[in-house]
This record gives sequence, structure tokens and C-alpha cells, in this order.
Amino acid sequence: MNKQQIGVIGLAVMGKNLALNIESKGFSVSVFNRSREKTDELLKEAQGKNLIGTYSIEDFVDSLEVPRKILIMVKAGKPVDDTIEQLKPYLSKGDILIDGGNSFFVDTIRRNRDLEREGYRFIGTGVSGGEEGALHGPSIMPGGQEDAYKLVEPMLTAISAKVDGEPCCTYIGTDGAGHYVKMVHNGIEYGDMQLISEAYFLLKNILGLSEKELHEVFSEWNKGELDSFLIDITQDIFTKYDEETGKPMVDVIIDTAGQKGTGKWTSQSALDLGVSIPTITEAVFARCISAIKSERVAASKILRGPSNFSYDKDKKEFIEAVRKALYASKICSYAQGFALMKAAADEYCWNLNYGEIAMIFRGGCIIRAQFLHRIKEAYDNNKDIANLMLDPYFKNILESYQDAFREVICIGVKCGIPTPAFSSALAYFDSYRSEFLPANLLQAQRDYFGAHTFERIDKEGIFHYKWF
Amino acid sequence: MNKQQIGVIGLAVMGKNLALNIESKGFSVSVFNRSREKTDELLKEAQGKNLIGTYSIEDFVDSLEVPRKILIMVKAGKPVDDTIEQLKPYLSKGDILIDGGNSFFVDTIRRNRDLEREGYRFIGTGVSGGEEGALHGPSIMPGGQEDAYKLVEPMLTAISAKVDGEPCCTYIGTDGAGHYVKMVHNGIEYGDMQLISEAYFLLKNILGLSEKELHEVFSEWNKGELDSFLIDITQDIFTKYDEETGKPMVDVIIDTAGQKGTGKWTSQSALDLGVSIPTITEAVFARCISAIKSERVAASKILRGPSNFSYDKDKKEFIEAVRKALYASKICSYAQGFALMKAAADEYCWNLNYGEIAMIFRGGCIIRAQFLHRIKEAYDNNKDIANLMLDPYFKNILESYQDAFREVICIGVKCGIPTPAFSSALAYFDSYRSEFLPANLLQAQRDYFGAHTFERIDKEGIFHYKWF
Repeated sequence: MNKQQIGVIGLAVMGKNLALNIESKGFSVSVFNRSREKTDELLKEAQGKNLIGTYSIEDFVDSLEVPRKILIMVKAGKPVDDTIEQLKPYLSKGDILIDGGNSFFVDTIRRNRDLEREGYRFIGTGVSGGEEGALHGPSIMPGGQEDAYKLVEPMLTAISAKVDGEPCCTYIGTDGAGHYVKMVHNGIEYGDMQLISEAYFLLKNILGLSEKELHEVFSEWNKGELDSFLIDITQDIFTKYDEETGKPMVDVIIDTAGQKGTGKWTSQSALDLGVSIPTITEAVFARCISAIKSERVAASKILRGPSNFSYDKDKKEFIEAVRKALYASKICSYAQGFALMKAAADEYCWNLNYGEIAMIFRGGCIIRAQFLHRIKEAYDNNKDIANLMLDPYFKNILESYQDAFREVICIGVKCGIPTPAFSSALAYFDSYRSEFLPANLLQAQRDYFGAHTFERIDKEGIFHYKWF
Repeated sequence: MNKQQIGVIGLAVMGKNLALNIESKGFSVSVFNRSREKTDELLKEAQGKNLIGTYSIEDFVDSLEVPRKILIMVKAGKPVDDTIEQLKPYLSKGDILIDGGNSFFVDTIRRNRDLEREGYRFIGTGVSGGEEGALHGPSIMPGGQEDAYKLVEPMLTAISAKVDGEPCCTYIGTDGAGHYVKMVHNGIEYGDMQLISEAYFLLKNILGLSEKELHEVFSEWNKGELDSFLIDITQDIFTKYDEETGKPMVDVIIDTAGQKGTGKWTSQSALDLGVSIPTITEAVFARCISAIKSERVAASKILRGPSNFSYDKDKKEFIEAVRKALYASKICSYAQGFALMKAAADEYCWNLNYGEIAMIFRGGCIIRAQFLHRIKEAYDNNKDIANLMLDPYFKNILESYQDAFREVICIGVKCGIPTPAFSSALAYFDSYRSEFLPANLLQAQRDYFGAHTFERIDKEGIFHYKWF
């Protein structure tokens, strides 16, 4: 019997769709699932395809050509470790395990190290694009041994999304690098979604735009600098109506957001690394506060907002100002995400290519956008740029849009419409471009009450002052 | 030989000062330190006092009355575990170990559980107030077995700070509760310091106040609602001059803030628990961005700020508006910290008494302030209040100060003076009192690209919409 080129273990929707995607690109596939029903279902769907089902781990592993390539698509966390343990007795040295789930990068580092010690190779890869992406072309962010990546590269690039003929898949770096970049991708996605939501909320509450007008505004925006998957689905969302009530879908859906943890991980990692990513973090907190709906409803009856303030200037002007605020804050948010990757690369010894990372974000994944070309260009211009905001293109946008950006935030502030992500993005910009910040007072306080010492502006060294 | 009532192990400045404080309250003390020098030094200082030095763990443990009470004052982390392991061979069942360092609460939970299993008792206690506090009266936040606490209560309350005759020490709850509350205390401290720094920066940059004027403003503020240790030391800091250059000390100290981790832990815990604490987190991020001074200096030469905007209204009026903004945002920040403790109490099964916690914060610790009475009163009025902002006193302040609060933020925004903590505090207030937030759009997006489902406003259940 011919051996198959790759095995997929775990046939929930992501695993199943990736298996079908791989087979459709001309690779032979074996599949295995803990319960046989999912295997049977997939085999029915895949009749006539070069995809075989197996019903024991032993048969599954045995059906694969050596060195074996096994894509693990099970729930992140313990199930990944359990699956690895079940596979190990049947593996040969040099086999390649690929974890395609949303694993925490620290786990991926550990698994890579432990498996390498035992003679196996391990790739932890981000796969972004949901069910549809898995089937038709996701963005793929693999990390692990580079020689192992070389062996699976043809397959991964074949199944990935393509933009201008380029695959949205590139080797990210050793051990946990792929999952780290995927995590930051998701953090950036949190930021994008919150920023769009704040723009929507301002337009709705300050101008009273209807869903039809909102559709028009976002459609228009999608033709320009903001052109992206998320703006595109947003304009489309405003065209959808509830069949039962006839209301716009957005008015039927309750305003409590869920989350699955990758945004939270991004913020926690930034805190560990001492990197400021306030916009992504405000996006996470905005989901938290949205989730306590009943508390908010009760509070809305108790806490009065500002004295009436109404916007009496031109409607079109305000829409354009919000567009500028959205684009400017998006730039600040991405600057934070990329600064975080840079700090992580230093900490975990990854040799990240930020331009390439921006390029593979262009297709397949949720944050795909025209704008990512600009990030690639920024790194082409200066691969060591300290912060994306310093790139001439982004600098120019931020400087020329800032008056509108500031105006929009002030209107939100005066009207009592919360814009936590917009505000944090502006404060990030203003802090970053400040030669001086008030941390001198803070250091004085720390030295005053805790003798924590300080540095001086005029000479090197560590100093303490006798305050009392 | 008479046995001593308590042992202190670890004689760095905190351990040494606590030992002296305990002895001064009439308790007999044994001490031990890894290196004998520190023991000898302390013995010299403590001649004639009821304090004996020991030079082996065995002698140290043997010198104590049973059940032994041993205060561990070593560096948080592995040294605490190492110390416990060294002590164990000589302990008897029922002995009480007390960790008085800044341990991570998760470690404290683990140590409590492991030691209890072996028959020992373990108290993890927050001790706030730095060196001075340790010697003259800190704020003490003990967690662990309540029966163990009862045995050390006389000693802990004796050495604690007193306010209106009341000790700033109370039993917090089981296992990690004390260290958790101490951690949140520190997070709140980060918030307070950042908020004060932003107020200072606005006054300095918008009004151009000199250090003399700043001293006057903060002195004045310290007589009113803002009366607190941190405002007090701030007014005093502005009276200090550098001997070498004659410049005000604040102008000599470099604006890069350090941090030791408890603020970060607070934010990370909030992210884990899904509780929004943006102001405390912005304070942590502000320290991070202050730390990249050279990047900021470079950026300040590249990124232009807003077109000139100058404040032309009354100086006194602006100072008063900043005061109101500071007090209002302080309320929002404490509301976040107390909401976090509430969520942690639910998660870790602690029966926290928030009013009592506010009371022990009144003395000894860094955030001591008049204002904490108001928090106690809020919980006296309604021990189950969902959020401090809903209490009539705080509600009234927030509502009546909000116009000034909003105005100050807008001036900062327009002038390019970053106010991340002020802005996040206002956004927290505005989000919390919003019946509707834009998370409905966010849920629509998540359902659109990931079939994450949503809830409806008009009926129970989980729904998915066929968007395409």
C-alpha cells in the first residue's frame, strides 16, 4: 500500500476543512478522529478523493510516509499534550508533528523543546481565517525547526491564501514564534473590531445615522485607505435584517461580547515584556465591560451623563473626521502590536521578519487589509524601525489626521460616548512623541516613600535624595 | 531557657524593621539570617532588647515557643519555597509560617494548600508601608487559616498602623486573599501615582506653573477631598531642590519610571477574571512607555504634535477643573480595584469585607487617604453594592464634577498632552453607565466571520445568522 503524505488528527470543522484543502491541492491525506463518526462523515463527503480514514492511532501513524507529517487539530491546552502522548509510541525519530490550533506560545515552546529532545520535530503554527479560510485558504504562521518547515513548506504554501500570487504563509521563527505572531494577530484583531465599533457608535449616537446610512458610510470607507475584510463585513452587516422582526440585525443582537482568550494573552504578554499596548488592552476590557450588561442597565438608571451637548456642525465633516480618527488609531494599534512582536523576538530569540509577517496577514485572515502593504513598505525602508509611527507614510497620516482625531475624541468625551480605544491610541501617539513625560514626579514619589532611587537627566548613575 | 514568642527569618530592611517593631510592642523575638553579618548587626542595634540571634535554622526553630510563629521576610518567589523547605524538618504540626513578602497570590494559595496537607498553618500577609511603615506601623493584610490568624492577631494588630485608635490590620480571608488584596492595593497605588502625574503635567504644560506654584496647588488640594499621603508627599517634593544645581528636584530626575511587578500582576489577574481595570492598566503601560526614553527623544524630533492650541481661560478655574478631574478619576480607579477584588473573591471563594479593607488602607500604606472613609461608608450603606460609583456620595461627585473632568481631558487631547489614565477613567465611567455599548456590532462581526453566535435582545437563546 502507498503511504499517504500527511495525516490530520482531529476532525472538528477546522481539521476537516484543512484536510479537504490539503487534498484538493494534490496531496494524499490520512485522517483520524477520537470518535469514528466524524471520520465516517468526512469519508462520505470525500468520496473519490485521495483521503483515507483510519480508526486507530497505530493504523493512522502507519499509513503515513516517513518522515511522517501529522497535523494536530485538537482543542488547545491539555488535548494537544494528550494527543502527542498517544502518537509518540508509534512515531519514528525525525517525524514532524504540527500543532495547528490556537495554542498558547509558552506551551508551544515547551512542546518543541521536549519533542526535540526525544528526536522529533515540532511545528506550532497559527492558522487564521476560520472555517472558510481553512477550506479555501487561510493565513498560516508556522514556527519550529526550520528544516522541518522546509519539508512541509510545499503543502502549507499550497493550501494558504494567495494575494497577488504570493502565498500567505512564511516561516516565522523557532519554537513558539508562529503561535506568538498568531496571538498578536488576534490582539490586533480585537483592536480593529473595537475601533470600528467606536466609530459606529459615534456615528449612530452623535449623528443618528440609520443602518442604511451606516452601510453607505462603511461601503465608502472600504473603497479607500480603510479597505479591509472587517470594514467590508461591517458594511454588509448593516444590510441584514431580522426575518422575524424586520429590524436591522445589529439592533437585534445584544451588546455583550464574548472572547476566547487570545486578546487577553496578548495583553498579558505585553505586560510581562513591559511593552505598552493600551489600545489592544482597552479592546479586551471593552469586551469585559460589555459582558456585564445587567449591571450596566442598572447603572444607566442611576448615573447621569453630561449636560446636553449636541453636535451642530456639518454631518459630512464629522463622518470624515471619524474616518480619519479610525485610520489614525488603527495605525497606533498596529504600531503597538508590531512593537510587541519586536520585544518578544528579543526576549525569545526569534529572528522575526516584520515585513513578511505583514504580507502574510494580507490574505486569509481576519485583519487582511490593503493597509498591510504600507507596513511591509515601512520595514522595506528601514527593517530596524523602532516604531511604525515613525515611518514617513504613517507619520504623515498621523500628523495630518491628528486635528480630526483629537476633535472626534473631544466630541465623544463631551457627549458621554465612550471611546476607550480611540483615546488610548491618541494617548499612545502623544506619549511616544513626548521627549518628557511626568514620570519624573512618579520617580520622586517612589524614591520618597520607598527609597527606590532614580536617574538624573544630567549625569549617569543611580541616586537617592534625602526627602525628609 | 524561655522560648521566644516569634521568629523572624530574613533580616533585610523590611525583616529587620518588623522584628524591631514587634519587640517594641512587648513581644520576645528570635531572628535568623542566611548570612550571620545581618544578624550581628541587628543584635548590636538591639542591645538590651528582648531579641535573640540564632545562627542555624535548627537553633532558630528550637528557640521558639510552640505552636511556633515564624515570619518569613525573604525575596518573593523561589527563596520563599526554599526557606519553607529548610524550616520544615524542624517544625511541629500546627506551627504557623507567615510570609510577609510581596508574594504572588497564586504561590500563596499553593503554599497554604501544601503546608496544610502536611499539618502546618500558613499565613500570607501583605505588609504595606515600606521601611518606615515596617518600623513604625504598616498596613497589614493577612490571609490564611483563620484559627492561625487568631494566634498572631495580638501581635499583628499591635505592630500595625493605627488610625483613630483602630489598627490597620484585619483578617482578609483564606489562603491567598491577603496577598491578593495587597496586590490590588499596589495596582491602585499605580493608578493614584499616574493620575497625580497627569494632573501635574497638565498644570505644568498648559499653565506653565512653577514648582512653587505646584507646591501651593498640591498643598491646597491636600486640605480637601484629595487629602492623602501621596498628595502630601507631592506637595513636599515640589519644595525640594538639588544641592548641586539649585534646580527643583523634579526637574533633575529623569522621567523613566521603574516597576516591580505588582501593578502588572493586578492587570494580568483582571484580564484572567474578565474585569475591566483600564485606569490601573494604563498606569502600568505609562511606566512602560516612560521607560523607553531614548526612543521618545528620537520620536519627539520626528512626530509633530497638534497645531498650536493655547488655553486662554482663567488659571484658577483650570486648576480647580484639574482637581475635580483628579478626584473623579481617582474614584473610577478605586471602583475598578474594588470590582476586581469582588470578582476575585467569587473566583477564589474568599469572603472579603470591602469596608474593612478600605479601613486598613487608611494608615501605614501608600494609598492612605481620608477618602477611604467614604468607601467604608459606601459598603456600610450597601455591602453588596455592584460598583462604588453607584454609591450616593461617589455618584454625586462624579455627576457634578463630570463637566470639568471632560473639559480637562479635551484640553489635554487638543494640546497633545497625554492623559491616558484620566481618559480611561472617564471611558470607564461612560461605559459603565451605558445601557447600550457597540458590542452588538462586534458580536455581529464575530458571528459573520467565525459563526461565534450571539444572544438577542428580545428572547433567550443562542443564535446564528446566515450572513452570506
